[in-house]
Amino acid sequence: MGNFKEDIALIEALVFDVDGVFTDGGITLMPDGDFLRQYNSKDCYALGRALQAGLKVCIISRGWGGLMEEWFRTMGVEEVHMRCMDGKAKYLHRFMERHGLRPEQVLYMGDDVPDVECLEAVGMPVCPADAVTEVLAAARYVSQFEGGRGCVRDVVEQVLRARGSWTDA
Amino acid sequence: MGNFKEDIALIEALVFDVDGVFTDGGITLMPDGDFLRQYNSKDCYALGRALQAGLKVCIISRGWGGLMEEWFRTMGVEEVHMRCMDGKAKYLHRFMERHGLRPEQVLYMGDDVPDVECLEAVGMPVCPADAVTEVLAAARYVSQFEGGRGCVRDVVEQVLRARGSWTDA
Amino acid sequence: MGNFKEDIALIEALVFDVDGVFTDGGITLMPDGDFLRQYNSKDCYALGRALQAGLKVCIISRGWGGLMEEWFRTMGVEEVHMRCMDGKAKYLHRFMERHGLRPEQVLYMGDDVPDVECLEAVGMPVCPADAVTEVLAAARYVSQFEGGRGCVRDVVEQVLRARGSWTDA
Amino acid sequence: MGNFKEDIALIEALVFDVDGVFTDGGITLMPDGDFLRQYNSKDCYALGRALQAGLKVCIISRGWGGLMEEWFRTMGVEEVHMRCMDGKAKYLHRFMERHGLRPEQVLYMGDDVPDVECLEAVGMPVCPADAVTEVLAAARYVSQFEGGRGCVRDVVEQVLRARGSWTDA
Repeated sequence: MGNFKEDIALIEALVFDVDGVFTDGGITLMPDGDFLRQYNSKDCYALGRALQAGLKVCIISRGWGGLMEEWFRTMGVEEVHMRCMDGKAKYLHRFMERHGLRPEQVLYMGDDVPDVECLEAVGMPVCPADAVTEVLAAARYVSQFEGGRGCVRDVVEQVLRARGSWTDA
Repeated sequence: MGNFKEDIALIEALVFDVDGVFTDGGITLMPDGDFLRQYNSKDCYALGRALQAGLKVCIISRGWGGLMEEWFRTMGVEEVHMRCMDGKAKYLHRFMERHGLRPEQVLYMGDDVPDVECLEAVGMPVCPADAVTEVLAAARYVSQFEGGRGCVRDVVEQVLRARGSWTDA
Repeated sequence: MGNFKEDIALIEALVFDVDGVFTDGGITLMPDGDFLRQYNSKDCYALGRALQAGLKVCIISRGWGGLMEEWFRTMGVEEVHMRCMDGKAKYLHRFMERHGLRPEQVLYMGDDVPDVECLEAVGMPVCPADAVTEVLAAARYVSQFEGGRGCVRDVVEQVLRARGSWTDA
Repeated sequence: MGNFKEDIALIEALVFDVDGVFTDGGITLMPDGDFLRQYNSKDCYALGRALQAGLKVCIISRGWGGLMEEWFRTMGVEEVHMRCMDGKAKYLHRFMERHGLRPEQVLYMGDDVPDVECLEAVGMPVCPADAVTEVLAAARYVSQFEGGRGCVRDVVEQVLRARGSWTDA
């Protein structure tokens, strides 16, 4: 493990939990059985920039819902794993294998206990400001922004700045 | 009444109000007459852990709605009492009788005046940071988290830690 | 104008604006043309107590929506005036005339410029913590709670306490 | 560039981004593919006053949705540009040309990187308190209010006060 700025420039893939990361953790059940989740426009913009820059993006969530999948597809994310109740790490490992990614090339952002195993498996474990204790302890970088309030934007921007591709907009 | 850590280890059942506890008190009427309520992913995770650990969970609310009932059923909670306008304590007493629970085995979390009678009937009365004055006065423990912002997670985690079953995840 | 505690004990009627008072000002347009508004459970409880105690309650809003009307009807409020774009004061005056209310018997809570005329017409003009400048200047009492975060509860509780009917619950 | 109060009195047209300006950035995908956005009643009131005062209003957003368009139409805004992914500045320039507006007559409010080009093209670039770094640097005035929490109201009120038409309500 080297200098933070050097290490973040090595990142080739971004892996995210959803609830408490892209959202403030709020989940609203609807009559049709699906769930409303409130995403954030600043996170969206950054996610689009990451995809444009050629970064690989993967979603691994214990949550689920047709709308969650549709949201990320609309954003251009191709890999969305939901209902990962049997441990998130195996989805992460398969993603890394499939794309030939080494741990130091992967950033993982999560906020709760089921994310710890994934955080420990990557070179750049990060979390929102309001993550739980176990996650704060496992993260190398804690965003000053909370889940749903720009924490995704914060880390994507840092990766792209380190690669020199943020100012290309 | 003994030491807080000793007493919380005795808890076998968790009883919760809904509005202002699982939510920030926000209620949104919809065209079909049901209500949208925003739950919190960190509370959900903890509630699942409590059920896995064999704790009994009961919901007692003056509020109502098909979606409220469905939400807690989805979470695995079997006992959900709604529209308890005639006093919540009787629903609590019946629950305790049915399961042979003594007051010192029961934690109750509520945030408003109708919860006071229940808080006074259990060994471990707790509340969110933004509970009303009467509830703050009746609670043995006031969570640092507000309703809908992780207060349920906070108390469930404390119960499971005291029982030594939080780190088993 | 006398002592605040003496004067608030004289209140017989509560008149409220909706957006920014019962809600945080948030309005969400839906596909059917109606609007979602998030109400607060602590305000609801207090409003129910006010009606039980025999206080008259009236809603005067420039906003509108079938759901707004239905919400207040469900709460038991009989007088709901919406789309009051032609000045709110005339609705207030008619309400006071119809019920034979003198200004010192009426509390009005609003948060924005269109409420100023009403605030000036009653003996007890009050507002949420986040009201606009003109309203803060016109109010006799500024709640420590913001719109949608318990400001209605705060003033209803103060009226009922002054009348000695809060602890009867 | 002169004195702020003198310059803001010259404004004849208000141009706004939507997400993060009229809203807190929150976007909620619905089953029908449209998006829920929460607007703010204080902003609405001010926007109505601006239109009454004869100011021209234009919306330029990279976001989209039938409900977004309908909301602004309901507010009385005639020019709403959505899905402006190919650069927002050209929509701004066409609007200014069509209405014969000089830069010093135009206020633009945005919160994110795609707004910078527009901010640099007008005499009065402004932003919400929670705008991103690049926007904070490009703005002549940073509102004390965040997106969706009254930042639009703040700047509209300042323009109307400078023109002496705020107190006419």
